[in-house]
Amino acid sequence: MTKIDKQDIQREYASMQPVAGVRLGSAAAGIRYKGRDDIVLFELCDTAQTAAMFTTNVFCAAPVVIAKNNLANASPRYLLVNAGNANAGTGQQGMDDANACCHAIAELAECEAEQVLPFSTGVIGQYLPVGKIVKALPAALDNLREDNWLSAARTIMTTDTAPKGVTRKAVIDGHEITVTGIAKGAGMICPNMATLLSYVATDAALPAALLQATLAQAVNKTFNRITVDGDTSTNDACVLMATGKSSLPLIDGIGNPNYNRMLNLVTEVFEFLAKAIIRDAEGATKLVNVTVTQGASENECKQVAYTIAHSPLVKTALFASDPNWGRILAAVGRAGVSKLDIRKVKIELNGVCIVSNGGVDATYTEALGQQAMQPADIEINVALGRGSATANVWTCDFSYDYVKINAEYRT
Amino acid sequence: MTKIDKQDIQREYASMQPVAGVRLGSAAAGIRYKGRDDIVLFELCDTAQTAAMFTTNVFCAAPVVIAKNNLANASPRYLLVNAGNANAGTGQQGMDDANACCHAIAELAECEAEQVLPFSTGVIGQYLPVGKIVKALPAALDNLREDNWLSAARTIMTTDTAPKGVTRKAVIDGHEITVTGIAKGAGMICPNMATLLSYVATDAALPAALLQATLAQAVNKTFNRITVDGDTSTNDACVLMATGKSSLPLIDGIGNPNYNRMLNLVTEVFEFLAKAIIRDAEGATKLVNVTVTQGASENECKQVAYTIAHSPLVKTALFASDPNWGRILAAVGRAGVSKLDIRKVKIELNGVCIVSNGGVDATYTEALGQQAMQPADIEINVALGRGSATANVWTCDFSYDYVKINAEYRT
Repeated sequence: MTKIDKQDIQREYASMQPVAGVRLGSAAAGIRYKGRDDIVLFELCDTAQTAAMFTTNVFCAAPVVIAKNNLANASPRYLLVNAGNANAGTGQQGMDDANACCHAIAELAECEAEQVLPFSTGVIGQYLPVGKIVKALPAALDNLREDNWLSAARTIMTTDTAPKGVTRKAVIDGHEITVTGIAKGAGMICPNMATLLSYVATDAALPAALLQATLAQAVNKTFNRITVDGDTSTNDACVLMATGKSSLPLIDGIGNPNYNRMLNLVTEVFEFLAKAIIRDAEGATKLVNVTVTQGASENECKQVAYTIAHSPLVKTALFASDPNWGRILAAVGRAGVSKLDIRKVKIELNGVCIVSNGGVDATYTEALGQQAMQPADIEINVALGRGSATANVWTCDFSYDYVKINAEYRT
Repeated sequence: MTKIDKQDIQREYASMQPVAGVRLGSAAAGIRYKGRDDIVLFELCDTAQTAAMFTTNVFCAAPVVIAKNNLANASPRYLLVNAGNANAGTGQQGMDDANACCHAIAELAECEAEQVLPFSTGVIGQYLPVGKIVKALPAALDNLREDNWLSAARTIMTTDTAPKGVTRKAVIDGHEITVTGIAKGAGMICPNMATLLSYVATDAALPAALLQATLAQAVNKTFNRITVDGDTSTNDACVLMATGKSSLPLIDGIGNPNYNRMLNLVTEVFEFLAKAIIRDAEGATKLVNVTVTQGASENECKQVAYTIAHSPLVKTALFASDPNWGRILAAVGRAGVSKLDIRKVKIELNGVCIVSNGGVDATYTEALGQQAMQPADIEINVALGRGSATANVWTCDFSYDYVKINAEYRT
């Protein structure tokens, strides 16, 4: 069996570039992990604009509530992220704790508490050890440097086995633009309008509203198209920062000739991070891209893609490299697409046609199926034969290790 | 860790009683399994009425299409069930194969082919070995006996570790009524308007339309409320037969004074079979009843219950007997209930209150949580605090063995 190639993940995080106007500092607060950093502070220059998207889970964590609120009321100067404790399911106490952290930073760094956005990731339902975090803040502030992206990526990890980070550069209109981003996440991954924790910064200049639109567009095609286990987390958050420190003039609207280049660059960074999360998903041995085409609407394509991507039977067959394509067919059949004509449906597995005319394709052989399932990268293509809409979802298989990691996470 | 108690499953299948007017005969066709029976024939007396519900999967198996069609056109005299091959995803060839089996029985038993209902369960996407089945039919016909329910229950097993069957009797208006039923199923279980394979017979007399309504009511509260993995199969089918051989007069409508007694008796049989399927679910170590109360509608209660029951994170925590209740909270939060006020939500785990006021309950301790998770029978209760509707779903945990069984099923 081929293994998922994580070399490009390593290559990319090792070559991350700073973004002028953003400094990062990590420190060890000892929240849950020993002998490693577990808090990271982002400092933004005063010209920076910040956009963010958050989980749609109504039991969202306290820091999500506070970050949303602060972002609406002030221009962020600091982002505080801690790993090891999600500060979710903690009620009013959780709110007070998140606010206390913001106030502590405001005092040390001489800004308003509302200019601090808090983020947490880790176990749900335990109170945040505010004392430990506050004690570690001076060290984080002392460590602030523009080239600390890799240590930040390492600091926010929980069950991740590798840091995730990437830089993309482009020369737009003669000006070099940098986009650097990091992310964490390996389980409880099924983002919905936001995801896991991810921080992406650019030195381009964009007004806040346009930055938010850019984030929404990029996330919709990347983080909102990945799933490990269908479990949308309480803490998902995704931040896009634009410092305006490059020499490229302000991109003032979607009509600006440089906007599409910028959007593509940002989307490229998000796509890399989204796929890196799936490559490093808990227990994953396969990276699976489910593409659904010829749908009547994008929504029904997503519906079919997610039904396949969430099916425990499809996922265990993928783990076994078993071309048990009947499980894919069954998933398409139960996806709830109204009046689907199964005679028009075609399903391919890494280019091998497995289903057509309502049943197994005439050219299919078990040998072809076995061969198609061997690589670590699997493409499942479903053509619905009823329109021109398409959608894709990235996911992974379900292994013994997924069960092991999630049965033992707290013990 | 306590084990799921399967003693009552054993006690019940060992004491199944015949139903006058129904004979069963098994035989070994060698479809997939060696050294065991794999086809079973039900013979119904000519006064019998038959009702059935089938999978809603649009990629439904060929026998589902044929059985639906035959049931609409004729009064069934024979049911043929095979294990080891689902005859699903087999296109026109599959239809021809299922029809060929019906015709073979019709010839041997001197009835119309449309009076035969075919059912298949097993691997999807392989053609049915019609020759082997036809060759075994005379032996099945020779074996027809009223007291063959247990061998029938054994014959239809695939990944089941135990046969599932039960008899309930009642004296209604001075007349003894028997209801006996069997079922199979352990994976690809998330019935939707019908389920897995199940055959239930009674000697009461009910007109066809009333029998269908009775089946629908019983299934809605039993088989339609269980899930192992969320994967609705291509072959689910559920049959209720009424032979009219008891001395109880015809139950002619829902206004009949004996109808509710009858409905309850039938529902009791279905409930036992539904829960037996979960108890014997692939790799299961816990039987979990998720009950959602105080909902604005039954639908939103089901939505929340299924979101919990399908969450891989909740299921792996259950496997670990880990009171990682944050995962239950997260599942409630992402279930899509519009305008849910999390301050009004209460969650209990085997009687221990874990969540209230938007966070961990003030009385909760880790020790209480640990204790609550030890039994094999787990009750998860969620009160939404917004109405009076309720719904419950039975499910099981997700274990190494689930992955093992489903990664190795075909190999």
